[in-house]
Amino acid sequence: MKIDQFRVDPGHAVELAERSTRSADGFDGDKAAGQQEAVRLIGRLGELQQVLYAGATHKLLIVLQAMDAAGKDGTIRAVFTGVNPQGTRVTSFKRPTDLELAHDYLWRVHQHAPAAGEIAIFNRSHYEDVLVVRVHGLVAEERWKRRYEHIAAFERMLADEGTTIVKLFLHISKEEQAVRFRERLADPTKRWKFRAGDLDERKRWDDYQRAYEAAIEATSTPWAPWYVVPADRNWYRNLVVSQILVDTLEALDLRYPDPETGLDGLKVI
Amino acid sequence: MKIDQFRVDPGHAVELAERSTRSADGFDGDKAAGQQEAVRLIGRLGELQQVLYAGATHKLLIVLQAMDAAGKDGTIRAVFTGVNPQGTRVTSFKRPTDLELAHDYLWRVHQHAPAAGEIAIFNRSHYEDVLVVRVHGLVAEERWKRRYEHIAAFERMLADEGTTIVKLFLHISKEEQAVRFRERLADPTKRWKFRAGDLDERKRWDDYQRAYEAAIEATSTPWAPWYVVPADRNWYRNLVVSQILVDTLEALDLRYPDPETGLDGLKVI
Repeated sequence: MKIDQFRVDPGHAVELAERSTRSADGFDGDKAAGQQEAVRLIGRLGELQQVLYAGATHKLLIVLQAMDAAGKDGTIRAVFTGVNPQGTRVTSFKRPTDLELAHDYLWRVHQHAPAAGEIAIFNRSHYEDVLVVRVHGLVAEERWKRRYEHIAAFERMLADEGTTIVKLFLHISKEEQAVRFRERLADPTKRWKFRAGDLDERKRWDDYQRAYEAAIEATSTPWAPWYVVPADRNWYRNLVVSQILVDTLEALDLRYPDPETGLDGLKVI
Repeated sequence: MKIDQFRVDPGHAVELAERSTRSADGFDGDKAAGQQEAVRLIGRLGELQQVLYAGATHKLLIVLQAMDAAGKDGTIRAVFTGVNPQGTRVTSFKRPTDLELAHDYLWRVHQHAPAAGEIAIFNRSHYEDVLVVRVHGLVAEERWKRRYEHIAAFERMLADEGTTIVKLFLHISKEEQAVRFRERLADPTKRWKFRAGDLDERKRWDDYQRAYEAAIEATSTPWAPWYVVPADRNWYRNLVVSQILVDTLEALDLRYPDPETGLDGLKVI
């Protein structure tokens, strides 16, 4: 499957309503075939991670953003269970603590940027500071507007210093969110995930979509592209995400490190 | 399989030479059956982790220690690939940095202790400060000797504050280490793992065994027990480790959190 179709070209306007949440374009197969292909890709991802970690030169940062119930947790579970946690770190950015709020908004995310050989997965990220912050007016517009440039500059620096950045927006429809909220409420094993406040956020759906469009448009760059991943169907979402990650890692020149010199003829006694 | 046979009873002397590195006691089956059982246990571990993470009350700390080539990395890969990395963190403690050395030896490990809902895996740990430090005389004996008590007190505090601690010593024979070193030297995809200095450490085998015995004896407690895991055969090692972890988690009262009150009758529109 070609991943370009999901990438947001730098400098292009983004209209989320124009982008399908259910498309299975570019994949000739049904759900079962898609799941099988995802298993293959995830296996490949595990192999690539092993070399990435051993080589300890490249760094991979994956940013996951989405509306509530779009499947951030589910994507991590589906795609990264099967990848060695040694070298793979997930950081969930929740409501900032007092300490975090006492710093600039990039301070807390910077600490969790990947080291050489690592994959860092951000479950939410610094993008919340131009999303929820904008929708709820937590800081003045003139302030959050400047953040697009900070973020682009920050990501540029990371990329220049050896970090490969992949940003994924899991795109679901408002109808699908309702279906998932109702499921959570009805299922005793999922009910704890539901907060009454989730419905207040849902009322701001359109505001969030506008905020996402603006953020994605302002920050999709050649060195840190955004992908809009159709996410109404979990199997297709997992397939697309794993294909994006495999293609991204395969484009790097991953290799095991050279052995120390002087090992020839060494005897183990 | 009963895991008590691997546990070091508090206050008992530990003689590693008396403990088998190849035993398959307590498991009625061959390698294929053992591998199959490990797959089942690892699947169960994944389920338990999901509830641990959701519940966000218990914390699990796993300390992995072993001689070189005993399989610390391999154990993590085998047992934790298949567990959701969201909520599972591996920290590899290498030679301390200048910053780390400028602090007490527990400073760097404390930062990586698990939060509520998390599994933290230490690949090497604060135990290096009574192992390599002792064998190489990096600090005076009167100083490292006092560390057993610091460590016991530190772990006691972690346990009192809600951390379940499991310490695993992967026990291989000196012969098996030689076999694995030779394999590393001969295999181009593994050769990078070999350091000529590994052979110098191997010469101190007996010193390390004495250091492990003293450390394990001094710090195996009811709240932070050591397990000596026979590790000459990878399949058996994986089986024992996964059984220990499953039994440990099953002994906790893991459950999904209660849902927010007031959700009854809520309509998603």
